[in-house]
Amino acid sequence: MDTTKKTIIVFSGDFDKAMAAFIIATGAAAMGDEVTMFFTFWGLSVIRKPEKVRSSGKKSILQSMFGKMMPRGPGKLGLSKMNFGGMGAPLMKKVMKSHNVMTLEELIATAREEGVKLVACTMSMDVLGFSKEELLDDIDYAGVGAYLGGADEANVNLFI
Amino acid sequence: MDTTKKTIIVFSGDFDKAMAAFIIATGAAAMGDEVTMFFTFWGLSVIRKPEKVRSSGKKSILQSMFGKMMPRGPGKLGLSKMNFGGMGAPLMKKVMKSHNVMTLEELIATAREEGVKLVACTMSMDVLGFSKEELLDDIDYAGVGAYLGGADEANVNLFI
Amino acid sequence: MDTTKKTIIVFSGDFDKAMAAFIIATGAAAMGDEVTMFFTFWGLSVIRKPEKVRSSGKKSILQSMFGKMMPRGPGKLGLSKMNFGGMGAPLMKKVMKSHNVMTLEELIATAREEGVKLVACTMSMDVLGFSKEELLDDIDYAGVGAYLGGADEANVNLFI
Repeated sequence: MDTTKKTIIVFSGDFDKAMAAFIIATGAAAMGDEVTMFFTFWGLSVIRKPEKVRSSGKKSILQSMFGKMMPRGPGKLGLSKMNFGGMGAPLMKKVMKSHNVMTLEELIATAREEGVKLVACTMSMDVLGFSKEELLDDIDYAGVGAYLGGADEANVNLFI
Repeated sequence: MDTTKKTIIVFSGDFDKAMAAFIIATGAAAMGDEVTMFFTFWGLSVIRKPEKVRSSGKKSILQSMFGKMMPRGPGKLGLSKMNFGGMGAPLMKKVMKSHNVMTLEELIATAREEGVKLVACTMSMDVLGFSKEELLDDIDYAGVGAYLGGADEANVNLFI
Repeated sequence: MDTTKKTIIVFSGDFDKAMAAFIIATGAAAMGDEVTMFFTFWGLSVIRKPEKVRSSGKKSILQSMFGKMMPRGPGKLGLSKMNFGGMGAPLMKKVMKSHNVMTLEELIATAREEGVKLVACTMSMDVLGFSKEELLDDIDYAGVGAYLGGADEANVNLFI
């Protein structure tokens, strides 16, 4: 075990939970830790590109439906509480901005600069029909085996 | 500490989170890890028998009410997001099936074959009025002390 | 690493999840563990004073709004599931009381007597506009760096 490794499973696609995940990840990376974030299920929304991308794979009707309804990237995520039909997140962002908290987009960029490893769960991609082009470029792709290998080497493993 | 032990608290009774928990658990067990899953609060729904079982204990009116409203087993769980009044889970299952993902029922069966220890939280059973007959047969029953004992010996401890 | 340290991030402001967090925390503390709980985002509701407190800092309109909508302390929290417009938590408390489960207020008091360290996330306080007077007295205040320092010394780190 190595006290300088951390893993975070980002299962949630909520703005507030994604913020928490990236604040922890960038904080740990700033302290020199090796951090790996696994994006699975709804968490794939967090690393989705904001623009509409033509998927290289063929999507089933259900996959198209999930794809249409899942938010396209950090700018479109809702709050886990007090979402008010989508109004909650913009209000939360406004109050965060006035307190000089980094935006989620900035936190993601910072995480990448710091070397935080972003990993998309391949099984979730398969099920929900996301192709690589629809997610952020230059990330990693792996399954539960890789997660468990990483978790075994880490001393902090969170599920968010 | 032993790198081959894992614990997962399954607090959630959502289909998608239960899937995540069992994918991690069965993955770890397949790699030779000793995995213990503690089902507490809404998580008891996941290990509930699908059929209506006459409870051996007397239930209060409130317990009967919670019992009636909590889903009976993996087949009845809803999604944590995009549940659409219950339609979300069947659609998710359909898309999972078409991608050859094991069903939650199959994952639970696999977990048991692999020796994953399923533990029902006795305090939650007491509060929500679940008797042993209402839950899967041949599981374990324990409280927070046993959980903490297990977590102390494990290197990955998740709360889902 | 020290097997007698535990950390819990309490991100959720739901009654049932707060109960789970404090049952684990007081259980671990009773077994001699050093437990630190970090209250962040909605979790600040759990350590909020029940009475209306005149904040020492000036709140923006948005902060006042979040302050008005976020529950004031353990007595006002809702359930994460089956909340029924606020009726779920009182019913859950009633059934818990009839089974001699400690109330959330009692669990918090017990945690404090046992020496569980309650820490409010300063960034969340800043963003949501909570001053120290609005939260429980004699708690600690810290940021993500302190959390990570604590997590590095602990053998169980949960995100609830």
